[in-house]
Amino acid sequence: MLDLIKPLAIRNQSKIVLAVADGLGGLPIERGGPTELEAAATPQLDALVADNVCGLSIPVLPGITPGSGPGHLGLFGYDPLQHQIGRGVLEALGIDFELQPNDVAARGNFCTVDADGVIIDRRAGRISSEAARELVAKLQQIRIPGVEVFVEPVREYRFVLVLRGAEAAADVDDTDPGRTGVPPLEPRARNPESEPTAQLIGQFIAKAAEILKDDHPANMVTLRGIGRRPPIPPMEEVYGVRAAAIAVYPMYRGLARLVGMTILDPGASWAEQTEALRRHWQDFDFFFLHYKYTDAAGEDGDFQRKMRCIEEFDGQLPKIVELGPDVLIVTGDHSTPAKLRNHSWHPVPVLLAADSCRPDEVRSFGELPCLRGGLGQLEAKYLLPLALAHAGRLAKFGA
Amino acid sequence: MLDLIKPLAIRNQSKIVLAVADGLGGLPIERGGPTELEAAATPQLDALVADNVCGLSIPVLPGITPGSGPGHLGLFGYDPLQHQIGRGVLEALGIDFELQPNDVAARGNFCTVDADGVIIDRRAGRISSEAARELVAKLQQIRIPGVEVFVEPVREYRFVLVLRGAEAAADVDDTDPGRTGVPPLEPRARNPESEPTAQLIGQFIAKAAEILKDDHPANMVTLRGIGRRPPIPPMEEVYGVRAAAIAVYPMYRGLARLVGMTILDPGASWAEQTEALRRHWQDFDFFFLHYKYTDAAGEDGDFQRKMRCIEEFDGQLPKIVELGPDVLIVTGDHSTPAKLRNHSWHPVPVLLAADSCRPDEVRSFGELPCLRGGLGQLEAKYLLPLALAHAGRLAKFGA
Repeated sequence: MLDLIKPLAIRNQSKIVLAVADGLGGLPIERGGPTELEAAATPQLDALVADNVCGLSIPVLPGITPGSGPGHLGLFGYDPLQHQIGRGVLEALGIDFELQPNDVAARGNFCTVDADGVIIDRRAGRISSEAARELVAKLQQIRIPGVEVFVEPVREYRFVLVLRGAEAAADVDDTDPGRTGVPPLEPRARNPESEPTAQLIGQFIAKAAEILKDDHPANMVTLRGIGRRPPIPPMEEVYGVRAAAIAVYPMYRGLARLVGMTILDPGASWAEQTEALRRHWQDFDFFFLHYKYTDAAGEDGDFQRKMRCIEEFDGQLPKIVELGPDVLIVTGDHSTPAKLRNHSWHPVPVLLAADSCRPDEVRSFGELPCLRGGLGQLEAKYLLPLALAHAGRLAKFGA
Repeated sequence: MLDLIKPLAIRNQSKIVLAVADGLGGLPIERGGPTELEAAATPQLDALVADNVCGLSIPVLPGITPGSGPGHLGLFGYDPLQHQIGRGVLEALGIDFELQPNDVAARGNFCTVDADGVIIDRRAGRISSEAARELVAKLQQIRIPGVEVFVEPVREYRFVLVLRGAEAAADVDDTDPGRTGVPPLEPRARNPESEPTAQLIGQFIAKAAEILKDDHPANMVTLRGIGRRPPIPPMEEVYGVRAAAIAVYPMYRGLARLVGMTILDPGASWAEQTEALRRHWQDFDFFFLHYKYTDAAGEDGDFQRKMRCIEEFDGQLPKIVELGPDVLIVTGDHSTPAKLRNHSWHPVPVLLAADSCRPDEVRSFGELPCLRGGLGQLEAKYLLPLALAHAGRLAKFGA
């Protein structure tokens, strides 16, 4: 798809806004009831839908529940199956760590091992973030010849390890066995080219074990999702748009950074995010706005709160519409039904507003009405090409 | 898809008709209004829809606006992304030039250069077709050792160059810089294997420049879309159908020829095209009828004329239906909304009539009703397999 789009991309003065309410899609709590979005009062979304076109976005493929990484890559127009982001990289993005292209990142856990080195608690009693911070400070003393070592706290028992300057491949297995009753695994290279990296990881673990051996309960570490950031061609190169991200949470800023977006200071609330959009309106062609709280409420299983979050999201839309974007897309990166307290695979309502829309008969924004929308059900990765088309930014393919 | 279909293809006595109204899909001029097709009185299409099944055809992929080449290859069952046709080949097809598989074709422009060789008019003042014909006659004198040279007029400042007998690869860059104020580019080979072809092209340009140097305003040429026709397996080989094309415009005959169709003399009007169908009914299994004027009206931005063209198209359908085709598909190769005065990416209404249809609830043929059609929204390349299936021409896949 990128190979198809790149030679067709046209630069013009149009503006595209992609407003993502994280985990927007939902489910009725009881059969016959409304979803969170259908229950919410969303006059702005309903008005937009009535004049434009909507449908349902399939984040990856039917039945596949995406994490935030693939969910957003799809929305940014990149095939989430072709561009996979490891857990280590995602964790680094999530703390605003500015990963360089060659950095090897891993997600770390403090854990508890017994006298025989067998794991008895994979999360070291869920130690506090404060306690972990002190342990991380100790691990930051580790030096490994040939590479620069970064250890950064995340939350509670979680940390990020980054090795900078490792030149070899980094296909190295997790050392977290995923269960208690066994010792941590060796960091095993999955191919000969990754041996040197596996050895560097091994050195880090040995030194960490030595430093932590008298701590309790966090007397050992495990590592997961070891790898580099995937090589993703930047949006400006592929689509010819100067793209900016307005996101409160670091992970979404990090995902935006991966595709070459400029990160704008969003303030701390959705209202401040839309203010930031107004301030920077002249500076970019494409804006990604990320609203987090719908997903958080869904994960807490709080149907009512998710509903209110959707209403808050809806309330600020006039500030976006006023700016006169040529194309406005509103959708989510995946569903997070309060009923399931988790991300899900269900298609996500999507609305596309543009002058060249072919209208459908949908008059309100919800999972059920969107089933009859003019966009049909389509993979998320096609939304960006559609946005470019409606913005007059795609030339004809073939003569 | 072709690899899947080919071993399943069955030959039988059935007849399939694919009737293409070019650029059929449209848009409302004003929000809430009808599209061209919805505004047109189409009793024949409506009657067919009521008894059969319809949907929307996505010419290439969401957001991708196809030229006539990819638009038609999709309808002929070939993936338009896998089989790409260069502009030179398309231009040659457009003048009924019978390209041989190894011919290298290029689209030529007469242009005007100043004393320093800088382009000051890329179209040589849009010289008349008559004037161009004289210039082409001069260029036809060019001889290049080792190849046969064909130069053919197209219209106004446009011509086609064909080199026959060039054996090397033909990945050669355009010499048209796409703007004025700079000299024409050198014909640069994109790989070492194409060097010999680039040199042949260079010889042609040098000789053309010498011949034209005292002409005004057409004192130079540029070339674009240099290349060979793509290797496309013929329809008879893949689908087992003897296929014929009935098209008034040369380009569509040329596209049909690319996939191995026999070209029938269509006469000059849609009524004569349907007459030709009747005359040749016994001689072929598959008929492609191409109606051009819907697209032309759309490109002129003439909503009313496009509407009347659709009505003319509709009026002749009984003559097709009377012949009793086992499968009749009516659709377009892409949308050409009068509102946009151009091809567009919007899905195209499609109707499939066959005895084995599973009916839907649609009762009139239009963009909005087709949203609820039984075919859903599907890529154009799947229409031909569907037609074969309904014609009893596809065996079961797998045991």
